Amino acid sequence: MSAQTVTLTKYIPEGMPGPEHFEIVDTPAPVEADMADGDIIVKCLCFSADPYLRSGCKSEAKGGAIPRPMSGFVSGKIVASKRSGWAAGELFGASLDFTSIQLITAAKMEKALIWKLDALLKEENISHGIGVLGMPGSTAYGGLIDVLRPDNRDEVMKDTAATVAAPEKVETLWVSGAAGAVGSLVGQVAKNVFGCTVVGSAGGPAKCELLKSKFGFDHAIDYKTAPTTEELAAKLKECAPKGIDMYFDNVGGTHFEAAMTTLAPHGRVAVCGGIAHYNEGERQPDRFFPTDLIYAFQRVEGFMCMPWLSGKKGSFHKDMATWMAQGKIVVEETFFEGAASWPMAFQSLFTGKNVGKVVVRL
Amino acid sequence: MSAQTVTLTKYIPEGMPGPEHFEIVDTPAPVEADMADGDIIVKCLCFSADPYLRSGCKSEAKGGAIPRPMSGFVSGKIVASKRSGWAAGELFGASLDFTSIQLITAAKMEKALIWKLDALLKEENISHGIGVLGMPGSTAYGGLIDVLRPDNRDEVMKDTAATVAAPEKVETLWVSGAAGAVGSLVGQVAKNVFGCTVVGSAGGPAKCELLKSKFGFDHAIDYKTAPTTEELAAKLKECAPKGIDMYFDNVGGTHFEAAMTTLAPHGRVAVCGGIAHYNEGERQPDRFFPTDLIYAFQRVEGFMCMPWLSGKKGSFHKDMATWMAQGKIVVEETFFEGAASWPMAFQSLFTGKNVGKVVVRL
Repeated sequence: MSAQTVTLTKYIPEGMPGPEHFEIVDTPAPVEADMADGDIIVKCLCFSADPYLRSGCKSEAKGGAIPRPMSGFVSGKIVASKRSGWAAGELFGASLDFTSIQLITAAKMEKALIWKLDALLKEENISHGIGVLGMPGSTAYGGLIDVLRPDNRDEVMKDTAATVAAPEKVETLWVSGAAGAVGSLVGQVAKNVFGCTVVGSAGGPAKCELLKSKFGFDHAIDYKTAPTTEELAAKLKECAPKGIDMYFDNVGGTHFEAAMTTLAPHGRVAVCGGIAHYNEGERQPDRFFPTDLIYAFQRVEGFMCMPWLSGKKGSFHKDMATWMAQGKIVVEETFFEGAASWPMAFQSLFTGKNVGKVVVRL
Repeated sequence: MSAQTVTLTKYIPEGMPGPEHFEIVDTPAPVEADMADGDIIVKCLCFSADPYLRSGCKSEAKGGAIPRPMSGFVSGKIVASKRSGWAAGELFGASLDFTSIQLITAAKMEKALIWKLDALLKEENISHGIGVLGMPGSTAYGGLIDVLRPDNRDEVMKDTAATVAAPEKVETLWVSGAAGAVGSLVGQVAKNVFGCTVVGSAGGPAKCELLKSKFGFDHAIDYKTAPTTEELAAKLKECAPKGIDMYFDNVGGTHFEAAMTTLAPHGRVAVCGGIAHYNEGERQPDRFFPTDLIYAFQRVEGFMCMPWLSGKKGSFHKDMATWMAQGKIVVEETFFEGAASWPMAFQSLFTGKNVGKVVVRL
């Protein structure tokens, strides 16, 4: 039996990534005879395709020499174990190379980011391990609950079904990339769990319809109809006449600039992505007026998922699983089939062809 | 007897403010016969000149029709009172028109920002009421202790002499405008109270010498020798090879941009001023890359002094007075004499002729 590895073979300094930059390399799959004490062998059932992977493809300085395996979030099943506490048949999520079947040595297990999924999902939903119950879910969760906290959190936040504090109902949130893996969850948690007013932006009428009909957002903005910062800000003001209290940024560029011009007093911006810039060669700055933050007591804060995905902060897995069971979160996924489809799955993130979480199913 | 009022008579859309934009208007001083129950008459002993006043001078839209009295922070003495709890001879700080002697009606007293200073200082130090114990002091205090808080505040912050939490000694702070009213206090509290490593920047060798010899800063940067963002960042990296953990921004422009490129992981930026931009006509944006904040978990936050000056947050007056009594804070002031000197005092903020707090003494 062979294992397949998604391999970067050409740097992509700028422009659209595609199959021409990657090869799928076949190698013999590891077998039990290769294992030492403490090792496990895993079979990936899903590879994730996420925008943040674009940066590492740019140059040797950004991601290392080529050819090299792509790596990122995967979910799958343990197929053999010589490690106490880990058994064949168990489901897992992890950050690993995109290799379909792989041996994880005892030494690597000590440092690996890998967690069990059996208590959270059934095998038929293994894709959730790289989505709503993985990186995108924990990004939405941490950003909304911690990073977008109000200044006077102790006064205005209150417990709900969540194990942690949450924003007030009176607040309005804007999330960009709202039909994507992270954005669709941010908006649903804000709207369906915490009762905020939610504005989402996405590309094209079909995605905008989805935001309202399937995810329950209050307003949807087709950013393709508002190409400049000023036009986008004007549309935002129609949806949120008093300004937005929170902005969850997956996009950057005109989206970030429009958010800053419509941010209400005590407004907060959580920055977790900037897909508008990812295919640029020489990256372009956004226009920013720091002094605008002063009298309005506004905040801009960057973050990524690890504190919440790892359980160091909050109770992500417990809360998100509860909200799903309560029907408050609808999961949307776009599937690609087979390791060889990974490059096209990755490209779909930048062409806007995906909806929800992009999953490469093996 | 007459009262004098500093009056804006010409808008200053851009460029340097000066005596040509203001008149000193004489009016009859109020007397006891003018007073109703609940009124007080105050005599200002100090008018403050602060950079933030520049904005209101730009146009009618920014600050109202002209001619109009300038207003801002003052300190002085109550000369007559028909108000319970307020007695002639008491010292006060307040936000009022720049009118040397004025009647404050009962109605105005209900809404006025005015506080007593007798417990905090003696009349010979009345200038401290618009400085270290007023707006600039509370700006330094709130920015350093609250706005620049680390993410993991609960873990790493600890009590000291202050009644509130404080940054760790291991951290490095950069403060711009470091020889000014706010900056000189920020650096001294960070260094002499909390033991941080402090880098200050100011214009010219004399101010830089002052930062090190009088205020005890670890490093001083003459920003005039580093006119571009890249040059300023290079100087910062010499002072803080591992990057800066905190940046207290009084300046904006190249200073803000250089801070962002040298900000360490989990770094915080407190924005309380942008004097580099105040004399611009059409204001210029700073270059900003929001995605740089993501993996570093960095934060940019704006604020002004009110929550700490009013006592709503922290214990500003108590803490600052304690630190002064302990000799940890040295107060530097530049005096101008008489109400008619206010326009030149104001101009000195933008020409760099001032050191420490600019006080117009009446």
